[in-house]
Amino acid sequence: MPVLWPIDFLRRTPLQLEAKLSYVRQLTSPMTNPNHPFLAACRREKTPYTPVWLMRQAGRYMEEYRELRAKFSFLDLCKRPDLAAEITVTPVERLGVDAAILFADILLLLEPMGVPLEYSSEDGPLIHRPVRTGADVDRLKEFDPEKSLSFVFDAIRKSRAALNGKVPLIGFSGAPFTLASYLVEGGGSRSYVHTKRLMYSDPGAWRTLMERLSQAIVEYLNAQITAGAQAVQIFDSWVGCMSPEDYQQYVLPHTRATIRGLTQGIPVIHFGTGTAGLLKLIRAAGGDIIGLDWRVNLDEAWEQVGYDVGIQGNLDPAALLAPPDEIRRKVAAILRRAGGRPGHIFNLGHGVLPDTPVEHVIAMVEAVHELSAR
Amino acid sequence: MPVLWPIDFLRRTPLQLEAKLSYVRQLTSPMTNPNHPFLAACRREKTPYTPVWLMRQAGRYMEEYRELRAKFSFLDLCKRPDLAAEITVTPVERLGVDAAILFADILLLLEPMGVPLEYSSEDGPLIHRPVRTGADVDRLKEFDPEKSLSFVFDAIRKSRAALNGKVPLIGFSGAPFTLASYLVEGGGSRSYVHTKRLMYSDPGAWRTLMERLSQAIVEYLNAQITAGAQAVQIFDSWVGCMSPEDYQQYVLPHTRATIRGLTQGIPVIHFGTGTAGLLKLIRAAGGDIIGLDWRVNLDEAWEQVGYDVGIQGNLDPAALLAPPDEIRRKVAAILRRAGGRPGHIFNLGHGVLPDTPVEHVIAMVEAVHELSAR
Repeated sequence: MPVLWPIDFLRRTPLQLEAKLSYVRQLTSPMTNPNHPFLAACRREKTPYTPVWLMRQAGRYMEEYRELRAKFSFLDLCKRPDLAAEITVTPVERLGVDAAILFADILLLLEPMGVPLEYSSEDGPLIHRPVRTGADVDRLKEFDPEKSLSFVFDAIRKSRAALNGKVPLIGFSGAPFTLASYLVEGGGSRSYVHTKRLMYSDPGAWRTLMERLSQAIVEYLNAQITAGAQAVQIFDSWVGCMSPEDYQQYVLPHTRATIRGLTQGIPVIHFGTGTAGLLKLIRAAGGDIIGLDWRVNLDEAWEQVGYDVGIQGNLDPAALLAPPDEIRRKVAAILRRAGGRPGHIFNLGHGVLPDTPVEHVIAMVEAVHELSAR
Repeated sequence: MPVLWPIDFLRRTPLQLEAKLSYVRQLTSPMTNPNHPFLAACRREKTPYTPVWLMRQAGRYMEEYRELRAKFSFLDLCKRPDLAAEITVTPVERLGVDAAILFADILLLLEPMGVPLEYSSEDGPLIHRPVRTGADVDRLKEFDPEKSLSFVFDAIRKSRAALNGKVPLIGFSGAPFTLASYLVEGGGSRSYVHTKRLMYSDPGAWRTLMERLSQAIVEYLNAQITAGAQAVQIFDSWVGCMSPEDYQQYVLPHTRATIRGLTQGIPVIHFGTGTAGLLKLIRAAGGDIIGLDWRVNLDEAWEQVGYDVGIQGNLDPAALLAPPDEIRRKVAAILRRAGGRPGHIFNLGHGVLPDTPVEHVIAMVEAVHELSAR
């Protein structure tokens, strides 16, 4: 965009000059207004309406995405920054959401640690050589995120450029427990038997594994922030399989170390599912915003974690299969529970389901904006 | 067992005679002491120690069971009262638990409703013609439990005879929601998309389905009680996929109707998993004892549901993979949270996992008895 330099430019005082330069920077680089509703809500400041985005807002439910997936594998899309950026930006235009989330996967940092990933269409990610012993843990490689995951940071820069300051960009990674459980189980799991067996029978190996993952996540997320991520979300998607006591002993210290290692001043969203019985501990582990799933009432959860953190959530993704009137009613119920308190970011309680009609997502976003307008 | 009739028998008063006859009945028929610790705990009375049993205490982890399964299919075992009774009684001898639970399946009453079941070894129960529409619901058959499930009641009578009053026998069924979700999904599910779609898009068909199931469960459980079940457990195993609001609207009225329909005076255990955010509503639906999974602290859960009901749980089944010392420590932690309050029945938070060493189960039962002895 060409910038016109007014004739009076050289007559300004230094302070006026700095203000002018800042204005020029906003016009020439993809700055985001720091008072954008999403960023303001992350600081628990008042916003004109409740900001909303959706986990997996770029995904199979969207025709644009399915067309790309017909030509490229999931990992190929992650590794091509031009396409990853396109996928990141599309839902912002299409849905009217208040934040973009980088198109990537929670497990990407495992590959450079020496663990090849396979994404099957049905079963989700598979790891053919799971990590089950102390010796397996010791074989994990040190990794340099800048070198091995440069495609992620390129995608962030390209996404920021394409977003052009319209909405903030969220970076993310899996949390230590969720990454560890994938590594140990070799994929998704119902009862997490191998993970818990390792934890109970070789607590030293478990601690080493969690420390290695925590350190890797810190480096990876800080590099995302350097590349331009304006907030980060830590997905502890499977932590809801843990008892509160085991969470406190085997998970909390490592999630806390992860969050403490992140660049100061960048909001951290700490998300998990099945966490209704863990919320106080999750809050103790850290995060500016606690992300909920739908299996707990938002007001009761917020009371538990305390009003000195924000809250994100928490519509059941399956609710988007309901007729739009019912969706609107459910949105209203969640906004009522949030009570207009600053620091609520509307979201689903987990990712958008593949069968979701895109019109229903749009209806949800509109309902959030309309019903929360202050 | 021969009963010696003392010579002075005919000299007793009527009251003395009645007492004598009751004593004789105890010797000649499989009566259970109504003050047995399990039954007393169901009434929240003081017991000399905390009673304990395990969900799926007869199962694949046990060699005796695997030997039978090598010769018979799962459904065959359910349908042969002699074998079902043998499987029911074995863990009482082997583990020293304080209650037997009938060997059966939560879905058995679906077959006589016209829904054939298949138990695959890996995927659990499968229903090849799922119920997805109002027309499917209308096709469900009326059933007469006494006629179509007589093998269950025979197994109960044989189990009572074999237990010979040693410990009480628990009967059970799936709860309306869990049965409905199996019917609609056609098996287990991760996101319960079909179930929720039916619920949201055709609430009338959903209500009819839940009412039909609730009525069937009432008849089935009351027939189990008539046959000799001394307590019943309602398994709402998958209800943890629901938001509190949806639970209240689409599930609670039907579970409540089920529990209200049961024979008075027989304790009802109301169990679910993933219910940390639903506990107050589950308690509102009913039950003398609320069964917890392990993903919530027992003391916090009991405080939520209120001390006017008992509580059952809540060791993580995966904890039985830990070394016995660690198991003992975890048992102690749960007993500490229960605080010796009358009305606690120790159990796992879900069924015993197939990989569990039987010695670990025995160590757990011993730890519960020793550490809770008052």
